Amino acid sequence: MRRLIVVLTGGTGGAKFVDGLRQVVPQEELTLIVNTGDDLDWWGLWVSPDLDSITYVLAGVLSKERGWGVTEETFHCLQTMRRMGQPTWFQVGDRDLAMHLTRTKLLAEGNTLTRATAEIAVRLGVKARILPMSDAHVETRILTPLGELSFEEYFVKRRFQDPVEAVLFAGAEEVDPSPEILRAIREANAVLLAPSNPVTSIGPILAVPGIREALRETKSIVAAISPIVGGAPITGPAGVLMESQGWPVSVGGVAQAYRDFLDVLVIDHHDAAVADELRRTGLQVHCTNTIMSSSEEKVALARAALDAASSASNWPAAESA
Amino acid sequence: MRRLIVVLTGGTGGAKFVDGLRQVVPQEELTLIVNTGDDLDWWGLWVSPDLDSITYVLAGVLSKERGWGVTEETFHCLQTMRRMGQPTWFQVGDRDLAMHLTRTKLLAEGNTLTRATAEIAVRLGVKARILPMSDAHVETRILTPLGELSFEEYFVKRRFQDPVEAVLFAGAEEVDPSPEILRAIREANAVLLAPSNPVTSIGPILAVPGIREALRETKSIVAAISPIVGGAPITGPAGVLMESQGWPVSVGGVAQAYRDFLDVLVIDHHDAAVADELRRTGLQVHCTNTIMSSSEEKVALARAALDAASSASNWPAAESA
Repeated sequence: MRRLIVVLTGGTGGAKFVDGLRQVVPQEELTLIVNTGDDLDWWGLWVSPDLDSITYVLAGVLSKERGWGVTEETFHCLQTMRRMGQPTWFQVGDRDLAMHLTRTKLLAEGNTLTRATAEIAVRLGVKARILPMSDAHVETRILTPLGELSFEEYFVKRRFQDPVEAVLFAGAEEVDPSPEILRAIREANAVLLAPSNPVTSIGPILAVPGIREALRETKSIVAAISPIVGGAPITGPAGVLMESQGWPVSVGGVAQAYRDFLDVLVIDHHDAAVADELRRTGLQVHCTNTIMSSSEEKVALARAALDAASSASNWPAAESA
Repeated sequence: MRRLIVVLTGGTGGAKFVDGLRQVVPQEELTLIVNTGDDLDWWGLWVSPDLDSITYVLAGVLSKERGWGVTEETFHCLQTMRRMGQPTWFQVGDRDLAMHLTRTKLLAEGNTLTRATAEIAVRLGVKARILPMSDAHVETRILTPLGELSFEEYFVKRRFQDPVEAVLFAGAEEVDPSPEILRAIREANAVLLAPSNPVTSIGPILAVPGIREALRETKSIVAAISPIVGGAPITGPAGVLMESQGWPVSVGGVAQAYRDFLDVLVIDHHDAAVADELRRTGLQVHCTNTIMSSSEEKVALARAALDAASSASNWPAAESA
């Protein structure tokens, strides 16, 4: 019988985790709920960084060197845009442009983002189901002493150097989650939260009305993989962003971010000392290597996460394929 | 004193002629009035094939091998668009995309096509003034037994294999010529019609209300270079298109297309036998080599055209720079 494994994901940590997962689980069993809070209008095109990365990783063409965009990429258009006096701080490759042109065209033709994403995924041979967190535009805004920045302005243009005063998800109150997302969470055999930034990768998904409630109500085990190891994020600005939410930068802080719906937390061996303390809060805790520095480690973490979710229920972790 | 040389142009013949001209005349003295009847919405971008070619040739980056697009081009986005299931019969290179993205963005921001064209030209170091024939959309439509085709559908997609029943310039009646165009024609020291297709390259320009009248009324000499040599076009579908207008496919047919405003016709030595016959209609006729198969021949034709216009008036053909 086919299983349904639902993954909430965003950012480079999420893409790496999904890279492991696709080698362990038949793609047909995977449903990815993807952050779109980073989406931006770039050169007039609708760019959706996390949808792009997840689509590319499932198509087997994500650049492993960069962690974003496609392999064997060139940047000739970008170089010419610089001559044209256009902004170039957000780097779009020549092959990558086809993604943004196609998405923009499909949206202009009246398709929803969910439909456009599915259409592109099919074209690239992706068998998993990729669901944007919402068809409406919810934009992550980072409040800094410089003023309000979009996520990519904060992250790429300013290289996350600014103090973070607050994080907003503009428009989130007014949107609806797609029925596909609510159904997937309800019917899942396991829900996994990728080791993504809890504030700006998973946070926007949880800000869509209905999704957090669905996670609380699902009968499925909900398991998260901590992006925090030894009191610091593996990469990126998760630390300062978690602090902006009043959460400790620790596996405990991750548990706190997801406290109302989390069953299982997968943490790194480095944090084994606090496992018992976390267990006393009612959480199931699994220790493993969570630093994905090789393809083997990605696969191993995916297996460990599936095992952790499986051992917490009577759900079959073994591959059905 | 700076001269003002106005050139009506379109197509690959026009681009080759302008390539010669820019080597003979300081760019500051050149005003190009460019066909935009071939403009198309391609992948959601505003592509203007003749504006692009003229801009590229004046920037010194037009591909001489292809006659369109830029030198040292790659087509990685196009290849990916094919995977995406998008149409790829109109070939857009990666560097060329920057032109279309920038134009589309400038237009979306509320700029006129004239303004957007000028902005892009400045960025690419072009000193000549490039004026689209109109800021409004006039679309060349080719009526064939298959139905109505856009020019690029007829020319590129169908490789001009279809019989031509008629040629329409959709929207032409309602548009206004830009004041810059009317002033340039009025104040020109010389007006040159490039050896472009008289029907679908020069024809759309002449269909814009006011331009034909301005050519009739200007005190400047108006000189055309015939794109027809020995009863046939050098390349492309000018023959069948001229026939569709009831014009002979000959230098005489070219003279007929421009009869109401033309002072001077530059024809190829091959057609020297009919020069006297043409002169009897009141036209001044100059014979030279009009086939531009090398850079030297382009320069020589530009000089010959300038000399022909000059000798018909007291206007200085010598370079002022």
